[in-house]
Amino acid sequence: MREDTTLSDQKHHQPSEFELIATYFKDLTGQAGVALGIGDDGAVINSSQNHQLIVATDTLVEGVHFPVSASAGQIATRALCVNLSDMAAMGAQPRWFTLALTLPEEKANSTWMADFSAGLADIANRYNIALVGGDTTSGPLTVSITLLGEAPPEQSLKRSGATVADSIFVTGYLADGAAGLKSASIKNNIYSNSDRLLQRFYKPQPQIETGLKLRGLATACIDISDGLVADLGHICKSSSVTATIYTAQLPIAADVRQLAPEDCIDWALFGGDEYQLCFTVGADKLAIIEQWISSGELFASKIGTIGAARDSDSLVTILDPDNNPLSANKKGYDHFG
Amino acid sequence: MREDTTLSDQKHHQPSEFELIATYFKDLTGQAGVALGIGDDGAVINSSQNHQLIVATDTLVEGVHFPVSASAGQIATRALCVNLSDMAAMGAQPRWFTLALTLPEEKANSTWMADFSAGLADIANRYNIALVGGDTTSGPLTVSITLLGEAPPEQSLKRSGATVADSIFVTGYLADGAAGLKSASIKNNIYSNSDRLLQRFYKPQPQIETGLKLRGLATACIDISDGLVADLGHICKSSSVTATIYTAQLPIAADVRQLAPEDCIDWALFGGDEYQLCFTVGADKLAIIEQWISSGELFASKIGTIGAARDSDSLVTILDPDNNPLSANKKGYDHFG
Repeated sequence: MREDTTLSDQKHHQPSEFELIATYFKDLTGQAGVALGIGDDGAVINSSQNHQLIVATDTLVEGVHFPVSASAGQIATRALCVNLSDMAAMGAQPRWFTLALTLPEEKANSTWMADFSAGLADIANRYNIALVGGDTTSGPLTVSITLLGEAPPEQSLKRSGATVADSIFVTGYLADGAAGLKSASIKNNIYSNSDRLLQRFYKPQPQIETGLKLRGLATACIDISDGLVADLGHICKSSSVTATIYTAQLPIAADVRQLAPEDCIDWALFGGDEYQLCFTVGADKLAIIEQWISSGELFASKIGTIGAARDSDSLVTILDPDNNPLSANKKGYDHFG
Repeated sequence: MREDTTLSDQKHHQPSEFELIATYFKDLTGQAGVALGIGDDGAVINSSQNHQLIVATDTLVEGVHFPVSASAGQIATRALCVNLSDMAAMGAQPRWFTLALTLPEEKANSTWMADFSAGLADIANRYNIALVGGDTTSGPLTVSITLLGEAPPEQSLKRSGATVADSIFVTGYLADGAAGLKSASIKNNIYSNSDRLLQRFYKPQPQIETGLKLRGLATACIDISDGLVADLGHICKSSSVTATIYTAQLPIAADVRQLAPEDCIDWALFGGDEYQLCFTVGADKLAIIEQWISSGELFASKIGTIGAARDSDSLVTILDPDNNPLSANKKGYDHFG
């Protein structure tokens, strides 16, 4: 009988989904292309003619992907930014998203919901994307977002196009992800005093503009959520190539070098949650990328070169400043999520 | 420190998302329109020219939407069927879906995953839909699905088009949802011996074909997940009308009438999880619907009539066999999910 009670009683004594969605998320649906927004069984969307649709989904679980101390607004911004990063990696223009929010009863109140929806609106407005569907359920705190984006046919960036002798680049700074995680996880330590690092965790900056610029230029692209070596390994596996990268060329911010002089190279190689792009470029397009970098139009660093496939366990060779190989056996943030 | 440990350790010691998705869900991605399936940062889809995209999302949480005793396959079929029902209510042709699966460690094994993916494949193949994105995370068992469907412009069914004097219909049998819940929740009772009722819970039959047939005919449509009175109330609210329904006309299966003679009317009115369609039809199209019903082409019953808006709390008037009004104050399965 207990299961029956649990099943039906929880359904009866909750605020209605319709009310929650209508109250807190209604004004996130007004953007272009939405023929019918929230409030029906589904949304109706006018997608662009002659475009392909790009779809990606990502879930954040309390205690796994963000600490229990995170505020509702922080959870919302992080969830949407992490998902937008997948659109950046595909070279897609993000357009619409759905939200599946599972919430424990103690958080299903107007204070929490208002903070959450403000965080969502902050990022949605910044990237001009519309919330087109939502489901709010009772249970352990979990945020699952599905993003829809668009790209002209055959223009999206994939993991599978890298070829021998391509140059390997990363955007922004590496090791910010791991340092940001420390900043978000441990109170009153040397990391938590850095607003920049806390923002890196809760508002990583999805490289949408860069992804769009790289259409037709990058041969392969991925966002660094599992760690540079693991994600570059995904490019190598999908492209049937190998990679060599140089620790001396890894871009690490001055504050992180100072805070973690011993760990920062390790974090840059194996730390996850970077949400920067790793991409490869052939010799024919290299001059364009290098010109953008030198003019400040693109913040990216060349970190290595693609090589031929070979019989070896390791797809990615890491060379230290003396050109000695480091072990790439650490599997990075090869996380279940 | 504990939070930090929880956050990063859980990431390190799980099987990789890529492996799980690749192993168990890869063959669910081969259907039409998928230019690039699972294994990249996003999927690439060729949507049909001159169609609108329909998007809906729904989450099922263990202990709330299915009992802890449910098998992996049962959870998968229910999750996908419940989501497909939203497509039916929109008159959409379902095409693609993403899956966000949050799984406790004890279930992240090949037995559970194989059973889950077989259940998913069963329904995906039956309705010819392709899995185009997945995210597997560690945490309390939660299944969130986002479905994408298509419909020609202005052809999708909404909640908002009902007008005065329209006839109100429901498909299939009512009260199956509540009886099915009892069948799934309580072992060794009079309900659990019914395969039909157990199937109603774990494999409700999304009325996709009916939704497609109703394009251009129904003035409004909704799927009955919150209970007939609550969902018909949604149509009334969206359409600015009221409704009158007759308990004598509610379609209830013979086995449910026999098992629950005292409860079945209540269940038909207020029980959720029916996944049948409630729709309204104007006088000009009524003959088509009635002809389909009498020829057996459509299994539906006329249960009432739409009336004008009025100043009253209750949007839906319920009349018993003697035409006396019943209280519609029960709010049905107005569940937080």
